[in-house]
Amino acid sequence: MSEKKSVYKPKPVSGFPEWLPEVRLVEQQWLDHIRKIFESYGYCSIETPAVEELNVIQAKGGDGGADVDKEVYIIERLHREDGDKEARLALHFDQTVPLARYVAQHFNDLIFPFKRYQMQKVWRGERPQSGRFREFYQCDIDVINVDNLPPHFDAEMPAIIWEILTALPGMQKEKIQLQINNRKILLGLFSEILSPLDQAEVLRVLDKRDKLPPAEFQKQLDAVLKKHLTSPFQLGDVTNDLNELFEFRDGIVQADIHEQINLLKAIAAHKFKSPSKEFHEGLEELVFVMQNLAHLPPNAVVADFFMVRGLDYYTGTVYETRFIDDPGYGSICSGGRYDDLAGNYINKHLPGVGISIGFSRLFDRLRQQGKLPVDRVSPTDILVTLMDEEGRAIAAKKAKQLRELGFNVELFHKGANPKKQFEYAEKKGIPFVFVPKQDAPGVWEVKNMQTREQKPEKEGLDELEKFRAA
Amino acid sequence: MSEKKSVYKPKPVSGFPEWLPEVRLVEQQWLDHIRKIFESYGYCSIETPAVEELNVIQAKGGDGGADVDKEVYIIERLHREDGDKEARLALHFDQTVPLARYVAQHFNDLIFPFKRYQMQKVWRGERPQSGRFREFYQCDIDVINVDNLPPHFDAEMPAIIWEILTALPGMQKEKIQLQINNRKILLGLFSEILSPLDQAEVLRVLDKRDKLPPAEFQKQLDAVLKKHLTSPFQLGDVTNDLNELFEFRDGIVQADIHEQINLLKAIAAHKFKSPSKEFHEGLEELVFVMQNLAHLPPNAVVADFFMVRGLDYYTGTVYETRFIDDPGYGSICSGGRYDDLAGNYINKHLPGVGISIGFSRLFDRLRQQGKLPVDRVSPTDILVTLMDEEGRAIAAKKAKQLRELGFNVELFHKGANPKKQFEYAEKKGIPFVFVPKQDAPGVWEVKNMQTREQKPEKEGLDELEKFRAA
Repeated sequence: MSEKKSVYKPKPVSGFPEWLPEVRLVEQQWLDHIRKIFESYGYCSIETPAVEELNVIQAKGGDGGADVDKEVYIIERLHREDGDKEARLALHFDQTVPLARYVAQHFNDLIFPFKRYQMQKVWRGERPQSGRFREFYQCDIDVINVDNLPPHFDAEMPAIIWEILTALPGMQKEKIQLQINNRKILLGLFSEILSPLDQAEVLRVLDKRDKLPPAEFQKQLDAVLKKHLTSPFQLGDVTNDLNELFEFRDGIVQADIHEQINLLKAIAAHKFKSPSKEFHEGLEELVFVMQNLAHLPPNAVVADFFMVRGLDYYTGTVYETRFIDDPGYGSICSGGRYDDLAGNYINKHLPGVGISIGFSRLFDRLRQQGKLPVDRVSPTDILVTLMDEEGRAIAAKKAKQLRELGFNVELFHKGANPKKQFEYAEKKGIPFVFVPKQDAPGVWEVKNMQTREQKPEKEGLDELEKFRAA
Repeated sequence: MSEKKSVYKPKPVSGFPEWLPEVRLVEQQWLDHIRKIFESYGYCSIETPAVEELNVIQAKGGDGGADVDKEVYIIERLHREDGDKEARLALHFDQTVPLARYVAQHFNDLIFPFKRYQMQKVWRGERPQSGRFREFYQCDIDVINVDNLPPHFDAEMPAIIWEILTALPGMQKEKIQLQINNRKILLGLFSEILSPLDQAEVLRVLDKRDKLPPAEFQKQLDAVLKKHLTSPFQLGDVTNDLNELFEFRDGIVQADIHEQINLLKAIAAHKFKSPSKEFHEGLEELVFVMQNLAHLPPNAVVADFFMVRGLDYYTGTVYETRFIDDPGYGSICSGGRYDDLAGNYINKHLPGVGISIGFSRLFDRLRQQGKLPVDRVSPTDILVTLMDEEGRAIAAKKAKQLRELGFNVELFHKGANPKKQFEYAEKKGIPFVFVPKQDAPGVWEVKNMQTREQKPEKEGLDELEKFRAA
């Protein structure tokens, strides 16, 4: 088997990330932490298959809207037989479409409000040259209820996300901020000047305000307004009024919200004649949510009247989350309230609210910046050394005992001199090494690889307990 | 939104299982348990992408051998542009091919012996009518080393698997047994009567001994022997000799192994002339592994000279695992030692040994038999009741305190009478409910939903601590 062979040297597949063990270990810490917080609020886990029927995937309503079709991966058996009459299957590109399908399909077996979290990989067939991930983890929570969903869930989402993001290993020093808004506010403002069907189109353009160069944004805004303005409104007036609104402070902290809302109301009454009931409802809901987030630090969550999300299916509260120092990164975590997500699949009225962490992109950002606490190549807490084959039975027994105490324990794989075994522990980031005491069979000493001190077993075990508690 | 709409009623996709939340919760307990035991032996986690290049998937060596090609799912962008010159991608059908590719690709960044576990979904495009899973979890461990892999790893695999399978929730009462063998034993016997290249083909037929009707098995065995026998051996003689061997006891416990091996040696010397060095090596390795499993119960692991696994790439130790009362189920968990798995991708000699739990099939068996401890619909430990909106701030504060103690806590979603809230806790299997004491704002009582007793908070918290420790 030792002759040189012709080998097929595999390359990474663009857009499908994979990590070395030491990075994967931190990824597991992230996933565990997120799961723990989700569960601490009583959300249950579900997993849906990687695939859905293409019909389901293409039904309107998913994250990404019309553009998503381009990104769908279909799957097919390599050797499909002619007689097969199966529905076409596609990999899911988000967890919202599968959730809607799941709730409709299992409606009679679920307990509402249905609070679920879902942490799976999703796939998007981005153009290969885009440099984006084509496979990535999303971590979502949603609550869905029948007919009516109490508004305090709109406040629970940002509270959970704040708790998660500020305590992820490596994220503690990052300055982040959640932005919150209610789509009804702008929709209400526009209800007088645009026909209802066109309002969402204007919101899609407004969503690009931070992403486009100012002139290009103005051009697109003018174009969409010109197309849809109802009389007697004039393009020039409306554009000016909107630009005046844009002067409004983004990022309104809770203490200022009432004052800012009164200002907005005054401008709205003056410029946009009589803003609809929807406008006032949106403001009330926004205030309610902000009040229910009063326990968070003052800058954790801010209101922003112009953050609208580009997706049509949001109907009220919307969320985005930014790095304060790096707004260009876009949103770490986004979501909102929807009126009736599963309406394509079931004749029930099922309003919901949800939020989604773009996990892999965020994780990879911190990885690339060297901010992840990557220090262990394996989960092993203790290496039990093996001096020679004769010592194996005693060493194996010690390893077993230590496992029963709840530690992760590796027995060195062959008899070798201690130096070599310490080097192995060093390379793998194993923090403690058990060494047999010379000329005292069955007696062990414990080397702490950080302090380099070697102590009697009992003291070593105390240090191990401290290490575990940390 | 309340008018009746035409809806697309989604159906389950055959072969792609999904569970209700209460079943998923047990599935998570299984996955957590398996991970914990894998890590307690110092195995690190890796995850590989769902896809590999089709070239890699089709390279020889994977689990399933030649048949696998039929089961491969390829993926393709729904709207592929003509200019795309990408490699064809396929979903992985096991975790062994991805491991081989991973080790070759990251060879310089890994520490050897490389001990990894992997718990991911795999996909097989089975014929739709087969009723088999097309998406399922596998839980694998493997150790790979450079040039030489110490034999005690062959004993570590069954020890880990025994620890896992006997403690999975719902599996504690199942009678299971690991079977172990070494392929070199039969290969060594055959080395005199068959040319080397054909020995694996005979083993593939022998692997079907329990799966085929006896006459059909005999027919296939005769056919393959007839094709490959070297002179001066005669088909009739060899068939008779083999049938005599088959009388040999399956399931040899450790206490009997030496006696049985001596018997086998005697028969081999008599019938098959001079069995090769390989034959004796195989016997020695088998004895070594059995001796290193002496700490397990007497019937946990048995030797079986005729269990050979159908896959060509195993070169020594092989494992299967059966339900003693239901041998027809096939193997719960299988694996073995291979000489050089990554040889297609790298010019290194990388022997390894591994074992794989067919997770989803096993889990679904116990689910269908009603053996899983399915009793909670959510991870919530405590429901904090909410009598009316005025009480929300106090209730939310209590929920937060309890979360800080490490409990999973749900605040009831709206003001409602206590009866309704108890019913909700009952339906979701939430074990404890916090109720405000009448006429004593800020004072709480704790109802244990199992005993139906309502006690002061302090006593309730003691019961909660006991519940958590259980």
